Amino acid sequence: MDRLIIKRAEVQKMEQKKIRLGIIGIGNMGSEHCRNIAAGRCPEIEIAAGADLRESRRAWFRENMPESAEIYESGDELIRENRCDAVLVCVPHYGHESLSIAAMKNGKHVICEKPAAVTASAARRMCEVSDQTGKVLTFMFNQRTNSIYRGIHDLITSGEFGSIKRVNWIITDWYRTQRYYDSGSWRATWSGEGGGVLLNQCPHQLDLLIWLCGMPDSVNAVCHEGKWHDIEVEDDVSVYLEFPGGATGIFVASTGDLPGTNRLEIDCEMGKIVCEDGITRLWKLPKNERDICFTSDNPWFRIDPDAHVLRSDGMNPQHIGVLNAFAAHLLRGEPMTAEKEDGLREIMLSNAIHLSGWTGKPVRMPADENEFDSRLKEKSAGSRKKTGEDITYLTSHTGTGKQEI
Amino acid sequence: MDRLIIKRAEVQKMEQKKIRLGIIGIGNMGSEHCRNIAAGRCPEIEIAAGADLRESRRAWFRENMPESAEIYESGDELIRENRCDAVLVCVPHYGHESLSIAAMKNGKHVICEKPAAVTASAARRMCEVSDQTGKVLTFMFNQRTNSIYRGIHDLITSGEFGSIKRVNWIITDWYRTQRYYDSGSWRATWSGEGGGVLLNQCPHQLDLLIWLCGMPDSVNAVCHEGKWHDIEVEDDVSVYLEFPGGATGIFVASTGDLPGTNRLEIDCEMGKIVCEDGITRLWKLPKNERDICFTSDNPWFRIDPDAHVLRSDGMNPQHIGVLNAFAAHLLRGEPMTAEKEDGLREIMLSNAIHLSGWTGKPVRMPADENEFDSRLKEKSAGSRKKTGEDITYLTSHTGTGKQEI
Repeated sequence: MDRLIIKRAEVQKMEQKKIRLGIIGIGNMGSEHCRNIAAGRCPEIEIAAGADLRESRRAWFRENMPESAEIYESGDELIRENRCDAVLVCVPHYGHESLSIAAMKNGKHVICEKPAAVTASAARRMCEVSDQTGKVLTFMFNQRTNSIYRGIHDLITSGEFGSIKRVNWIITDWYRTQRYYDSGSWRATWSGEGGGVLLNQCPHQLDLLIWLCGMPDSVNAVCHEGKWHDIEVEDDVSVYLEFPGGATGIFVASTGDLPGTNRLEIDCEMGKIVCEDGITRLWKLPKNERDICFTSDNPWFRIDPDAHVLRSDGMNPQHIGVLNAFAAHLLRGEPMTAEKEDGLREIMLSNAIHLSGWTGKPVRMPADENEFDSRLKEKSAGSRKKTGEDITYLTSHTGTGKQEI
Repeated sequence: MDRLIIKRAEVQKMEQKKIRLGIIGIGNMGSEHCRNIAAGRCPEIEIAAGADLRESRRAWFRENMPESAEIYESGDELIRENRCDAVLVCVPHYGHESLSIAAMKNGKHVICEKPAAVTASAARRMCEVSDQTGKVLTFMFNQRTNSIYRGIHDLITSGEFGSIKRVNWIITDWYRTQRYYDSGSWRATWSGEGGGVLLNQCPHQLDLLIWLCGMPDSVNAVCHEGKWHDIEVEDDVSVYLEFPGGATGIFVASTGDLPGTNRLEIDCEMGKIVCEDGITRLWKLPKNERDICFTSDNPWFRIDPDAHVLRSDGMNPQHIGVLNAFAAHLLRGEPMTAEKEDGLREIMLSNAIHLSGWTGKPVRMPADENEFDSRLKEKSAGSRKKTGEDITYLTSHTGTGKQEI
């Protein structure tokens, strides 16, 4: 209830038509957000400011963003100024905590790129500052806006498919060449990024997994570090999951499979849901499998093998949808794409998988945050120093290519 | 080389047109084999004898099999008589070892239903007797005759797809109701069957996994016992596998998913092979992924997402194919569907998965056979006694139904 009151208080404050947004970090993601907003795709947001440590990126911002937008050399500077209602944090993961907390303490709402932070303890501190300051905190879980996952979420929450018995997610279509890892000195290091495929690529799927199936209560993982690339962090992960209700799961992720797979299967008491190649197929049982099992005279009960395709509204607004929902929340109290606790949960699961991989043992949730933090600190201390240029890429969803900034 | 000489010696012995086969156990599988052979589907095999402990089944045999075929009350009796060149062992798993060994020691070749035995140690003893006696021993791995798996095997062994990097097999389409488990007093007990889905349903897939991908060198498994049914053995298994060359794998099996899934994915250096719904799709890379990874300038290298469908000869002779190959081997030295060592390997892997599940720890291959045997003995000692009728079902590949014998 307190939470709702805070939201309503904010709504009253925001009697303006547009959210004045400051974007901290004009790299791959930050520049994509800049372009989307400048192109008018977020009608309730105006770019009030940007910040980047690098002059080449600031120059790009000056040239391509509205004249009214100020550009700063650091996020802290942007935060201290009063040009923005909210900030969008797009710096490497380790910077999420301090910038988000500084922003909230300076009266700004925050939307932060995923993962919420490198450690669950940091994400927890961010959530606490949001509670203390009453400032909104949310995270860029843009995959939740995909009609495919919204459709599955609606189906599961409707109860039509009953309880979940099993989830198998093979998410190996995150292929990256060595060139990718060499394109940033912070990338794929314990000290610079805090992890590999779990921290960079999988936050979306770990968040969706929790959103769709609930939080696992134990994980048993194998994390192979530098298996396919010359990197020190994990690029290949196999996880066995157990959920409170008895469901089990498999989660396989890699940046070394070409072509990879993105296949999500959710087995429920009332049937099966399989999402692959952008299509969600459904098999619906005439009655609950648990009843069939114990009442059927047929030892080999079968159903029609033909699937129905789950229709969707086809909308997939991605980052734009998350930003628009954030603005609508600040202006009118409408629901956001994700709550701050979703960001915390995602990194809790991610950390637990790492910890299980590092210790070679199953980890019960919640994982020991002190143990995780001290092990990560050890690993970071041994991180190798990477040299070479930091390259910003144009990361549209279909194409790739080096950005000339 | 010794092995080859033995085979040739056998070929010289068999200067007859047909193998005289004795079938021990006229239950579900035994009666299916009887019908196939009597219907002329195995032109080089004649049914010379049958054996079953139950009069109802012997009566069925007398009524439906050729008059020339003798029926015995026990397998040992059949083996002692000299009516047969070879025996087909179709009794519950625990009987495989003693009957196969007795048959070979009495000069008969043996084809035995899967699994080879309940324990790797027993399968090892069977193989040793085959070596000592020079009698052929093989196992009913009928899924190897499926054009789908033959096609994948040919593809992998051709080297066209390079080394295997990952295998994910979700094989959960073994749905069984409680009625199935209640239909036999030996079924799904430690003392009567020695296991659940691993022993009864999965020998095919474990054999195929080894045939296609090689023998794993470690397994880490979770085996849920009586999770979906009122049984004491495992009906839900999740396994993580590691192979000598560095490949990893996932194997998920269950008799509690409705509808289940049978999806085999093999990721290779030169592309991906996915078999689901009876179709094998291929994605072939222009060059080895390991080269692409370290030479491409593109951080997000992608290939055409369209797959090619692997053409097959469509032949799927199943049990009939295995029996015909067995006869052709005895008569002319042609290759069998599987060698005896394949049966040993399958149960070695199966036992290792059980042992990992029981101990909650990864197991390196080969698993400790003494430890497995003593743990199974303990479990068998605590087995519950099941009562109720033993029902024989007509198990065609498409239909189901209670057999009136």
